[in-house]
Amino acid sequence: MGMAADIAEQPEVFERLLAPEHRNAIAAVAARVAEFRPRHVMFTARGTSDHAALYAAYLTEIRLGLPAGLASPSAVTVFGARPDHSGALMIGVSQSGGSADLVEVMKQARESGALTIAVTNTEASELSEAAELHIDVAAGKERAVAATKTYTAELLALLMLIEGVRSADGTLPAAELAELGRLAALAQGVLADPTPRELAPRYRFAARVVTTGRGYAYPTARETALKLMETSYLAALAFSGADLLHGPLAMTDPDVPVLAVVGNGDGGAAMREVLARLGERRADVVTIGPSDVEGTQMRLPTPEVDERYAPLLDILPLQQLAMALALARGEDPDMPRGLTKVTVTR
Amino acid sequence: MGMAADIAEQPEVFERLLAPEHRNAIAAVAARVAEFRPRHVMFTARGTSDHAALYAAYLTEIRLGLPAGLASPSAVTVFGARPDHSGALMIGVSQSGGSADLVEVMKQARESGALTIAVTNTEASELSEAAELHIDVAAGKERAVAATKTYTAELLALLMLIEGVRSADGTLPAAELAELGRLAALAQGVLADPTPRELAPRYRFAARVVTTGRGYAYPTARETALKLMETSYLAALAFSGADLLHGPLAMTDPDVPVLAVVGNGDGGAAMREVLARLGERRADVVTIGPSDVEGTQMRLPTPEVDERYAPLLDILPLQQLAMALALARGEDPDMPRGLTKVTVTR
Repeated sequence: MGMAADIAEQPEVFERLLAPEHRNAIAAVAARVAEFRPRHVMFTARGTSDHAALYAAYLTEIRLGLPAGLASPSAVTVFGARPDHSGALMIGVSQSGGSADLVEVMKQARESGALTIAVTNTEASELSEAAELHIDVAAGKERAVAATKTYTAELLALLMLIEGVRSADGTLPAAELAELGRLAALAQGVLADPTPRELAPRYRFAARVVTTGRGYAYPTARETALKLMETSYLAALAFSGADLLHGPLAMTDPDVPVLAVVGNGDGGAAMREVLARLGERRADVVTIGPSDVEGTQMRLPTPEVDERYAPLLDILPLQQLAMALALARGEDPDMPRGLTKVTVTR
Repeated sequence: MGMAADIAEQPEVFERLLAPEHRNAIAAVAARVAEFRPRHVMFTARGTSDHAALYAAYLTEIRLGLPAGLASPSAVTVFGARPDHSGALMIGVSQSGGSADLVEVMKQARESGALTIAVTNTEASELSEAAELHIDVAAGKERAVAATKTYTAELLALLMLIEGVRSADGTLPAAELAELGRLAALAQGVLADPTPRELAPRYRFAARVVTTGRGYAYPTARETALKLMETSYLAALAFSGADLLHGPLAMTDPDVPVLAVVGNGDGGAAMREVLARLGERRADVVTIGPSDVEGTQMRLPTPEVDERYAPLLDILPLQQLAMALALARGEDPDMPRGLTKVTVTR
């Protein structure tokens, strides 16, 4: 099955991206960024790639100390905005590189003086032609409509890019490279765990689900919600832990399952108060992370790694859960109704 | 009832903000921004205020030609990011001005060289003390927990600020002021329309709802979803029209009600393809806007105005719908379960 094969390939994709060919290509792009010294970084993306961009925005602020934001393509493509991006770095992220709206945003950003990078899963595309620089995330052809391996490949490529920018020549420090080198084996271990398949029947009759996480884990919550919507047609609502407390908390009760991404670092620590509030509402909370959390029902186990690496591993059991749930509901996760692989929007 | 009174007061709040006292105060802040000439604009906000900030981000890109982004507070407050905001404008939007995380983001932005503005519904607050400049949206005390009049007051204050920045002295051109001067009477007319109360029973047994809009109308979709979650505990999912086509479309079917904000300008035109795709999925679509759209079920009528003003009017019947639906479900919209007026997050 396509989605199963895509999911299973992720450790291999990590190894491929980290091998010298792609690693050196990303380092060359990172060196150009370091030389350009952007004043701030903007991202433009849609769907799953938007979640990879969100992860990269956190990385940019935390690891590079540069303001980062996500551009709304429609300001440019629908309302004719012509923002002055001089001195900025604009990164477009797109599996296909074929979204006309992102192409237009990139062209306008480049014309107004931004350094532009296209991050795609293609050797060439309209987006890579519009941008000055290009990173191929080298995930190989994706079989299923729902993106899985292209998502984690985008995460890793953006992580390698941003960590590379910290050194003048764009290369990764040896210690960083060693940590990244462990990811493929860790991913293999996560994928071998049977918990996601065991957990799926629990949500067979759920009409909605809430996903939540903070900081680096928030993109994981967003991507999980999208996977559940795409493959199982669940009403899946993603909130940052903080935003959940600002209103949507009212919606949670014992009948609304919550999937909470809770690592052992600062973001996970900040989630504890959110989990306590969910506990007061007697919400059914399943966590994703390395440690059990008091008052929660079950846990999808993932390895203990620096929170910055966790998004590459935490999403794996959640992809498996989405797929298993689709199958449990009699749906075909490879061919969600109403969707196509390349979505054309303006 | 608190929420009903808050909703009904909005025309009066528009008039108060546009009267010389507050108009001149906002113009003075706008003049400082025009003098500072920011390179880009960042916003930081939570919940309802985040939707006002999103509206202002579109305005900034379209009307000022400046890149705009929404800052993630947790990068600073949880992960210790120290982004260099020199040359940028940072605007914090908060009804209470009491969110500790926003205060920390503002302080860090100011220390790193940003011009900072606090937009609050208070004369003084921790946020306004942290920022160099302050705008009081003058909505008066909000009775209900769910924000209504403070939302539209924030929208109008941000609109006045951004339009003011276009002139060197921060004042609004006479033509703009005349257009804004019509809003109170238009709002009064919208609020008198009985359609929202008539529509509410239709959603009495809905478990979920999708809200959608593009560009300026997307914040309206987001705010509608939050209001429905807060007051009626519906699973309400908001998508920009473009993002809806990237995945979540699979989730829509004849049993999922859709509320689509569709004006007569460019954003509304861009929504037509989305509505066509929803029609293929036989979704139940109710529109909010000035004109009927073929293939949709019903419409909450709002006046024909420039799309930039529409968010101040389109949200009104949706606030009324959320309130009427809460009452139809036997809930107390003034006191949503699990929520408090000032949410403390870090």
